[in-house]
Amino acid sequence: MKIDILTLFPEMFDGVMNHSILKKAQDTGAFQYRLVNFREYSQNKHKKVDDYPYGGGAGMVLTPQPVFDAVEDLSADCSEKKAKPRIVLMCPQGEPYNQSKAMELANEEHLIFICGHYEGYDERIREHIATDEISIGDYVLTGGELGAMVVIDSVVRLLPGVLGNESSAPEDSFSTGLLEHPHYTRPLDFRGMRVPDVLVSGNHGKIEEWRRLQSLKRTYQRRRDLLDDFPLTDKERQWLEDLNDE
Amino acid sequence: MKIDILTLFPEMFDGVMNHSILKKAQDTGAFQYRLVNFREYSQNKHKKVDDYPYGGGAGMVLTPQPVFDAVEDLSADCSEKKAKPRIVLMCPQGEPYNQSKAMELANEEHLIFICGHYEGYDERIREHIATDEISIGDYVLTGGELGAMVVIDSVVRLLPGVLGNESSAPEDSFSTGLLEHPHYTRPLDFRGMRVPDVLVSGNHGKIEEWRRLQSLKRTYQRRRDLLDDFPLTDKERQWLEDLNDE
Repeated sequence: MKIDILTLFPEMFDGVMNHSILKKAQDTGAFQYRLVNFREYSQNKHKKVDDYPYGGGAGMVLTPQPVFDAVEDLSADCSEKKAKPRIVLMCPQGEPYNQSKAMELANEEHLIFICGHYEGYDERIREHIATDEISIGDYVLTGGELGAMVVIDSVVRLLPGVLGNESSAPEDSFSTGLLEHPHYTRPLDFRGMRVPDVLVSGNHGKIEEWRRLQSLKRTYQRRRDLLDDFPLTDKERQWLEDLNDE
Repeated sequence: MKIDILTLFPEMFDGVMNHSILKKAQDTGAFQYRLVNFREYSQNKHKKVDDYPYGGGAGMVLTPQPVFDAVEDLSADCSEKKAKPRIVLMCPQGEPYNQSKAMELANEEHLIFICGHYEGYDERIREHIATDEISIGDYVLTGGELGAMVVIDSVVRLLPGVLGNESSAPEDSFSTGLLEHPHYTRPLDFRGMRVPDVLVSGNHGKIEEWRRLQSLKRTYQRRRDLLDDFPLTDKERQWLEDLNDE
């Protein structure tokens, strides 16, 4: 996978892109990335990339020219044989990001991320350049850079061979549709707080059942919205309703 | 504001914490941060911080001892006069993060973030140490580090004096309850794509009305869920319903 990142703050990416699993994934050839400061594409003599909003108001708006030229330049790399790049605009007005979108993007060959800063993008960038608009959540960040890092991290870990333990990805929260069950490790007794007996019983059937119920319980208590489309058995539904009486 | 970050990958934070607005906010004294590698608190002779899960299964689990000891050490700094720190565990099972949570955290004096890696946290960390569990969205990341950066960025930009233009923060998407209206800047005509006439009309009443309606329209088309609790006038509601007939 090839990833291009358009940003005015390329230095922000160094720490995240070059440690832990993103580093390993580059070392094994799972993906490569390029940071492009689109200020370099500005035809303005002072290399300006923003200007005042038409109609007045606070803040500065990113002008279309540098972003259009940068994206066209990076897309031109692709020979006709290859798939067209997905051009992802990071913005609070975008589609809420989730695990299925991560899986969808993990199938692409080439992603281009556009990271805004300041008040916003000129609408023509949104309408005529972006193939996807993504918001990582209902909160406001100082720029699109952190959002792009979040999307890249969640996509790259799904690429084949990136996670050491192949069985980790499908069991994650959100992949099963439920929140994960509690985990415990040694010591058995930490300052008087003990691991539940079932986990040291050696009875694998019981352990599986406990984990499934704990996973359901946690989802029911914290994120009931996730259960709306979840196929519960009658017995599980009854068990969850009984929790309310506890 | 004082921010402590417990992580096994402190180098990941350098780029994000030391550029753009987070850098400026430190220079002006709005906040200071400390990176703490909790591996240094491990009493294990190999400085191990993780172990196999009780009951079997894939992945490794963070053991309680290093995290408990690190948090207690960092909390001990606080004199009794000061408010207790908020201890935020970054995890997919947490409360979904949003702008009101950002505003709530922006009122605190001391935040401690716990960033996990690997399969998960020992449940005793969750139950006995954390005051808050936060998830930045319904997707899986390789660790809690990016989540902590997202929360820190969104909180710090709300601290007094951090955003140059004081009027920017309250007008953001999510602060008003609606997605933002489109922005346009120069040129008036870019490759045949023109700025809407109303924005260059000079009629401020009309511009305000256009922006309000565009903001409503965008929210209605992309995130109807945000309108559930939004106080629409009858006229606005009618206008939105008429959009369906277009």
